[in-house]
Amino acid sequence: MRPAGTSASGNGHCLRLRRLHIDSYLEPVAFMHRDSAICRSEGFGVHSRLQVRVGTKSVVATLHVVDGNILGTDEISLSESAWRLLGAHDGGQAIVSHPQPSAAEGLLRAKVMGNRLGEAEYARLIADLVHGQLSDLHLAALVTACSGDRLDITETIHLTRAMVAVGDQLRWRETVVCDKHCVGGLPGNRTTPIVVAIAAACGLVIPKTSSRAITSPAGTADTMETMAPVDLDLAAMRRVVEQEGGCVVWGGMVRLSPADDILIRIERALDFDSEGLLVASVLSKKAAAGSSHVVIDIPVGPSAKLRSARAADNLAARLTQVAESLGMRLQIVMTDGDQPVGHGVGPALEARDVLAVLQRDPAAPQDLRERALNIAAAVLELGGAAKPGQGSVIARRTLDEGIAWEKFQAICAAQGGMRVPPVARFRQEVVSRGGGQVAAFDNRRLSKLAKLAGAPQAPAAGIDLHVRLGDRVAVGQPLFTLHAETSGQLGYALDFLGTGAGIALPISIAGD
Amino acid sequence: MRPAGTSASGNGHCLRLRRLHIDSYLEPVAFMHRDSAICRSEGFGVHSRLQVRVGTKSVVATLHVVDGNILGTDEISLSESAWRLLGAHDGGQAIVSHPQPSAAEGLLRAKVMGNRLGEAEYARLIADLVHGQLSDLHLAALVTACSGDRLDITETIHLTRAMVAVGDQLRWRETVVCDKHCVGGLPGNRTTPIVVAIAAACGLVIPKTSSRAITSPAGTADTMETMAPVDLDLAAMRRVVEQEGGCVVWGGMVRLSPADDILIRIERALDFDSEGLLVASVLSKKAAAGSSHVVIDIPVGPSAKLRSARAADNLAARLTQVAESLGMRLQIVMTDGDQPVGHGVGPALEARDVLAVLQRDPAAPQDLRERALNIAAAVLELGGAAKPGQGSVIARRTLDEGIAWEKFQAICAAQGGMRVPPVARFRQEVVSRGGGQVAAFDNRRLSKLAKLAGAPQAPAAGIDLHVRLGDRVAVGQPLFTLHAETSGQLGYALDFLGTGAGIALPISIAGD
Repeated sequence: MRPAGTSASGNGHCLRLRRLHIDSYLEPVAFMHRDSAICRSEGFGVHSRLQVRVGTKSVVATLHVVDGNILGTDEISLSESAWRLLGAHDGGQAIVSHPQPSAAEGLLRAKVMGNRLGEAEYARLIADLVHGQLSDLHLAALVTACSGDRLDITETIHLTRAMVAVGDQLRWRETVVCDKHCVGGLPGNRTTPIVVAIAAACGLVIPKTSSRAITSPAGTADTMETMAPVDLDLAAMRRVVEQEGGCVVWGGMVRLSPADDILIRIERALDFDSEGLLVASVLSKKAAAGSSHVVIDIPVGPSAKLRSARAADNLAARLTQVAESLGMRLQIVMTDGDQPVGHGVGPALEARDVLAVLQRDPAAPQDLRERALNIAAAVLELGGAAKPGQGSVIARRTLDEGIAWEKFQAICAAQGGMRVPPVARFRQEVVSRGGGQVAAFDNRRLSKLAKLAGAPQAPAAGIDLHVRLGDRVAVGQPLFTLHAETSGQLGYALDFLGTGAGIALPISIAGD
Repeated sequence: MRPAGTSASGNGHCLRLRRLHIDSYLEPVAFMHRDSAICRSEGFGVHSRLQVRVGTKSVVATLHVVDGNILGTDEISLSESAWRLLGAHDGGQAIVSHPQPSAAEGLLRAKVMGNRLGEAEYARLIADLVHGQLSDLHLAALVTACSGDRLDITETIHLTRAMVAVGDQLRWRETVVCDKHCVGGLPGNRTTPIVVAIAAACGLVIPKTSSRAITSPAGTADTMETMAPVDLDLAAMRRVVEQEGGCVVWGGMVRLSPADDILIRIERALDFDSEGLLVASVLSKKAAAGSSHVVIDIPVGPSAKLRSARAADNLAARLTQVAESLGMRLQIVMTDGDQPVGHGVGPALEARDVLAVLQRDPAAPQDLRERALNIAAAVLELGGAAKPGQGSVIARRTLDEGIAWEKFQAICAAQGGMRVPPVARFRQEVVSRGGGQVAAFDNRRLSKLAKLAGAPQAPAAGIDLHVRLGDRVAVGQPLFTLHAETSGQLGYALDFLGTGAGIALPISIAGD
């Protein structure tokens, strides 16, 4: 006699689907009752891996066991991402079985034990990874096993190629397709819209896909969205690029390097990554986007991801070697990473700075302008729109004569219509408690404060900085203004500033 | 104005507790509604780490976000282990805040990046680990960063000492306290009760704590429990050892090396461990138990954890070096790991074999008897109850004269009363499909089959083997008998044997 409510065969057991609406992010989790006959008979326990099939679709999930009455003993629930992936519906049937052993686990084990993997092995590992064969714990092991000095150049090349192969790959008619990328966060470093406008105005093709913020107060896509629509699909993006030469759209609508999206999620949760993975991440996305000529901005400084020139040089060398193997031309630009760029931190406040530069407003932040010109010059020379040494002059002229601003408006129109960035209703100045000189910015705390104020979900929220490194300030002089869309969010941000034991001011003043 | 139903301060936000009875094993998980004002204002998202306080107790949990109506926007739920740890109750208050940055994360990052950590650093890392400061992803990174050749002897010693320091440590009056341990699973290798009986009968002190099965069909504690109570607390265990010299109890009642319990859970989910972690795991438990003289059984063979003599030698050398640094005397015994030991696989079936050996039943499995005598001889010599070279003779005499059997009965009585192992109601012989010679056992499949039949929760369930390596078998000759407590479970096991594409027979017959 079988336990009631279930049926067994060599191919699996049948359970009724029930949606609990639990979001465990991308990791597929299955929920089953502890008294489920299947848990018992199959030896499934908490943290077991199981194969769940709904119709013709299937996923490997990690089991969490439920004791209470939110789930019946003949029911199964799935985390939201798995529910959607399988196209599940309440009351439908799911088939549960032991997963087939995955080749990826064996390859991962070999890598963890210190072996080097070959090209075919990385291809297999990454294909299985994208198909959900590895648990989050396995992914954390993979990230760790590729950290430090454990991923050499050859392996980095294999890994990058494998990551390109498993996703969509854009193809362009042009042989020179430009791109730019900034490694590591510097708040307000929003050069992309300016660089794209200058490069496209000079006749280059630069189809830029950008990300939204995940842990930061604004991604380029968030900032751009306050000025124009960014949710363009591939066809719409092509149309914009064919018409205007460039675009700034959200990369989430095209599936470039999905393996990278998975690994980045784990690296973020672990709060570390490695040079090898960083290189594979950046270059796999660029190669998949069809970019042939890429400028990489590496900010170096105490607040930046790269804190020493030596570390930046190592990264630059590795990026260049791997790019070469992919037939991609790379130009590295090392920039100053000492402090935030421009005045604004948050989608609309950063857009305001970008527009001020493009519109040649005399009050525009000069650091943002100079950085954008610097990157644009490199793009122009690399892409062949300027002779070596002439990029800077041409970029400056394109900006100063208003040609870049016209091109930017045309791109926004082509993407669906230009918008005016919103302005926050609630604002509060924060003043210096001491007098002296601005000695340092704590970028992590600045970002936290901007997020507490509502960024990036509230696009007008964020921080407007009034001082820069080396400025002299008096007691009571405004250091920055908090912007929020609701008074509650403004209150949260101020609360945290107010508790001395908790968060200190994100700007240090060295007393005289 | 604050969002309704919550209150904010620099010290955290208040939410109402609601039990959902979700068991995510040992990892603390918090569940909050996506529309919770706190998620928004604090920037908490899926996979955020948060500090949850209930009264004076606190835990760091990973956030899962709920969209549906199983949780209100002003409520929080916790996974079962966290709920119990905090002493939470339905309707009570929980305070949620950002966790303090943990030193452990920085140390882990340094280790991942290839640095060696010192004694104080391991002490801090493991203390934070035991206090729940590291997520499961961080723990997977730690296990990985200690794998392969990445944990040298000095680090292994630091790690082992740190693991001992964070748990309970047993102290005994005697200066010679014996113990034994078997590295890596070999089904049916249940020598412990026999070895303890012989050693205690010869006057040695051997307070043995054993584990329950987690992924195997039986742990020593499961097997012993079919013959006597094993859930003894420390006071009861001391009483038994003072009276009889030895015991075989479940280690779960004393908190020896809790860091090891946490790491083992992750290693099991990852399905790999490393030599360094294995050594720290084994020796931290022994040192915490107050053992001074320890015999380690290392089965070597194609079915065992250690597959080559070289791997076993390396492990033995490392175990010996680390034990020396802890002031512990170690004796390694390499044993044959080619096939299961005895006839039975499963708690009661293994107990039956143990009892047959102790009772000098002529039908007792000779391999189990010889292995137990071998280990017992090493214990007797190491512990000083036999002169070098005399251990074997004394062990054999103690067993053959029935003195060990008397001692075992006395130990069982002292632990709460001897029991008769249960016998399964449902049985099914499985016969050979071909004729020839028994060529190999697949221990993994044997274990799976025993678990499908109900072991270890159903103590009488399991497998009774009728053949050994090299035996000649004819078509239709019984290879083993499945034992189950319900016909449903017997059916599950047979179903899986029946599907040729799924699980093949766990015993290979080489045709003539």
